[in-house]
Amino acid sequence: MIRLIFYVGRLFTCKSKRDIGDFVKHVHYTEVESEEPSEKGIKDMKVRWLISKKDGAKNFAMRLFEIQPGGHSPLHQHDWEHEVFILEGKGVARKKESEESFKQGDVFYIPPMEWHQLVNTGEDTLKFLCLIPYKKE
Amino acid sequence: MIRLIFYVGRLFTCKSKRDIGDFVKHVHYTEVESEEPSEKGIKDMKVRWLISKKDGAKNFAMRLFEIQPGGHSPLHQHDWEHEVFILEGKGVARKKESEESFKQGDVFYIPPMEWHQLVNTGEDTLKFLCLIPYKKE
Repeated sequence: MIRLIFYVGRLFTCKSKRDIGDFVKHVHYTEVESEEPSEKGIKDMKVRWLISKKDGAKNFAMRLFEIQPGGHSPLHQHDWEHEVFILEGKGVARKKESEESFKQGDVFYIPPMEWHQLVNTGEDTLKFLCLIPYKKE
Repeated sequence: MIRLIFYVGRLFTCKSKRDIGDFVKHVHYTEVESEEPSEKGIKDMKVRWLISKKDGAKNFAMRLFEIQPGGHSPLHQHDWEHEVFILEGKGVARKKESEESFKQGDVFYIPPMEWHQLVNTGEDTLKFLCLIPYKKE
């Protein structure tokens, strides 16, 4: 009987297969599914939603983007900000009429309505974190 | 006269010395000041506020923590969440009564009120991003 209660209890406390341990979410980024966004203007770019509403995160989401050499994100603007950290690789960040190069360890704050595009100009995969708010201030 | 207007205009549009280019904020993380937090329970830990309200970010802040071998963040809890990405190094993440090891590329979502502490158990500096909301949902 005690064993039965134990197993039923485990059923209700079981966690996602992805989780390494006791924390609500603890995974290696490669364990999170890599998806192809459908937005126009993208070339050879994939995204992993590392932390999102599905995990209980109500304020902001953490995504990891991977862009192959020669690939890019769309040149676009929107009414929410980006907080970006370059994990691996190099490239150029474009606005409508200018561009600047970036490398591993670079940080961008891109405010709402700023035009932006990230292009992989290197020979390796470009990887970066890009965080977005769920609620726009 | 035109030249005067040009220079006065530049005064009003001049950017932080840290900025690499045209984007509102584009810096390498090492260019952001490293501060020693005053909270009790910290050992050999420093923080760089990479993106904060000072940059116009109203919804959430990006901080980069560096912990020396044997050092740690405080074992604490609070009513806001953490979104964490391990950039370099390895360690253990502790709750009150359990711990689990982590490595480069690991991701944690630590919800509000969850006890947590990150300890550097490696031989190199542990570096991780930890993002927090400005407004708690």
